[in-house]
Amino acid sequence: MPHPMKKFAIGVDIGGTNTAVGLVTPQGKILKKVEFPTSSYSGPSGFVGRLDQEVRSLLNKCSLSKKGCSGVGIGAPGPIDVRRGFIYSFINIKGWDNVPLKALVTKRLGLQTFVDNDVNVMALAEYLYGAGRGSKHLLCLTLGTGIGGGIILDGKLFRGPAFSAAELGHMVFNEEGPPCACGSRGCLETYIGSRYLVGMVKEAIHKGVPTRLSSVPSKELTPKMIYQAAMKKDRLAIQIFTQMGERLGWALAGLCNLLNPQIIIIGGGVSQARDLILNPVRAALKAKAYPIASRSVKVVLAQLGIDAGLVGAAGLVFVSDKKRSTQK
Amino acid sequence: MPHPMKKFAIGVDIGGTNTAVGLVTPQGKILKKVEFPTSSYSGPSGFVGRLDQEVRSLLNKCSLSKKGCSGVGIGAPGPIDVRRGFIYSFINIKGWDNVPLKALVTKRLGLQTFVDNDVNVMALAEYLYGAGRGSKHLLCLTLGTGIGGGIILDGKLFRGPAFSAAELGHMVFNEEGPPCACGSRGCLETYIGSRYLVGMVKEAIHKGVPTRLSSVPSKELTPKMIYQAAMKKDRLAIQIFTQMGERLGWALAGLCNLLNPQIIIIGGGVSQARDLILNPVRAALKAKAYPIASRSVKVVLAQLGIDAGLVGAAGLVFVSDKKRSTQK
Repeated sequence: MPHPMKKFAIGVDIGGTNTAVGLVTPQGKILKKVEFPTSSYSGPSGFVGRLDQEVRSLLNKCSLSKKGCSGVGIGAPGPIDVRRGFIYSFINIKGWDNVPLKALVTKRLGLQTFVDNDVNVMALAEYLYGAGRGSKHLLCLTLGTGIGGGIILDGKLFRGPAFSAAELGHMVFNEEGPPCACGSRGCLETYIGSRYLVGMVKEAIHKGVPTRLSSVPSKELTPKMIYQAAMKKDRLAIQIFTQMGERLGWALAGLCNLLNPQIIIIGGGVSQARDLILNPVRAALKAKAYPIASRSVKVVLAQLGIDAGLVGAAGLVFVSDKKRSTQK
Repeated sequence: MPHPMKKFAIGVDIGGTNTAVGLVTPQGKILKKVEFPTSSYSGPSGFVGRLDQEVRSLLNKCSLSKKGCSGVGIGAPGPIDVRRGFIYSFINIKGWDNVPLKALVTKRLGLQTFVDNDVNVMALAEYLYGAGRGSKHLLCLTLGTGIGGGIILDGKLFRGPAFSAAELGHMVFNEEGPPCACGSRGCLETYIGSRYLVGMVKEAIHKGVPTRLSSVPSKELTPKMIYQAAMKKDRLAIQIFTQMGERLGWALAGLCNLLNPQIIIIGGGVSQARDLILNPVRAALKAKAYPIASRSVKVVLAQLGIDAGLVGAAGLVFVSDKKRSTQK
């Protein structure tokens, strides 16, 4: 019996540690997925060989063939020339500088291929299948070590002409603030990036602020531990998250004044603190943005979690298909 | 002999003091223009009557008729519902709250009418006819008492779904900064708005910093005087403009990281300081933005000066005409 699904796509989510590959339906359902270590290949050609092999295996397991496949979508970290599907560099992965990934995958797999930045892909996933459904203008951000951003304007990913847009962690938040990894100082990331959260806890402990976190060896402290302490009503931990949320909300107020989004979607590891962050974000945004901008925006958590990269990558293919069919 | 120009438009630039009306060609040339005081009408209906009368007079003088006219474009200050051509309020002009200006003008003049925010209109003018020609992604800002912004993305004015986008003076620049007129604090406007420039000079004089400006009565001090002092190599005045430019460049670096524009156009009264501002803006932007974003952007002065409002307003009509013809 032939499979009822005619036009699935292959989604690929390349991470610093693992790469996930999956067969995804146009409705964003993952039919089957698999993971393999990204870094076990000392360069892209071995990686593409493994990808090919995993795709064949997935197709076999689902009794599908490449004939029913719309194409391959790939999300990858770092700066990418989306038009050429060209990866300038991967942070933390050796041998991946200046890789024409789109061309390599198209040639090896014989399928049209799209490559985009991982946060763009996540934003697309939330727009198509997650918290952003029904909104045409949205901001998506990931809270972790770094602050990643994706922007959907008028129902389309906004990448900017040099494909470097949406770096919303690197707008100044305090001109007198600390140096930032980007070379500037006082960027939003230096106030809400997870390494800075940890730094704030360490500083408070050093100053003698009482907290259950003082029993954790300084080097082992993680944002998750701060969150867990907050859940147990640790005053310092709650204060750190509240302040982080207030600052994020303030920065987002400026982005609402600038871009007037309908929805702001917050994802990434640190967003697991949920209401602990969301409540102060919402309050600060409301207090600081123009009423016309704050009235029309909702701030919500990402819905797709760990699969956002995979379904969003497949989404690159479906969006492109749709674009072509409306242009006919 | 019939006039060779078939499709001109009527541009209207409503300012707090005067309103300019002109007949404008699709090439952005003003055939004829006139001004009248905005505030001499205690409400929109008297104003629309005067507008009608001035339009008839202009048409007569140019031997043109409404038949050859594509429509009316209006730029106005303050928050506007662009779709409905509805003006929520005019700052400084009484009797103009909740005015359905588009409907009033369409009815009275019998011509299709478009209404938009004055800085959007200026951005459109620079995009179509000025410093932004050839770029599809641009930011336009006006430096004056307030900081106004207009955004063109992918060749179209970006207004946001609630038409309140592009308020780039009201993004946080220093969380510890002074209170802002918008209700927040530390906004960019509190660092580079002209009233703050004047305030900085006053503060310096109060502290005993030597400057030729100390001879000016405190209440009469204007940004223009600071500029003139800087031209005469007054150290304090030069320092104030340099610091302003550095801060503006820093904020623009963040906007380049976010939106990756190809060109940033600076207009408004304070931009008359030209290189005194431009040089530090460019240097700070280059130092603070991601290289991929700063490499691809130019910072230039607005070209259209006082006529930008008029030709940009007419541009609203031409852009709409073009949109309709490509949709056919």
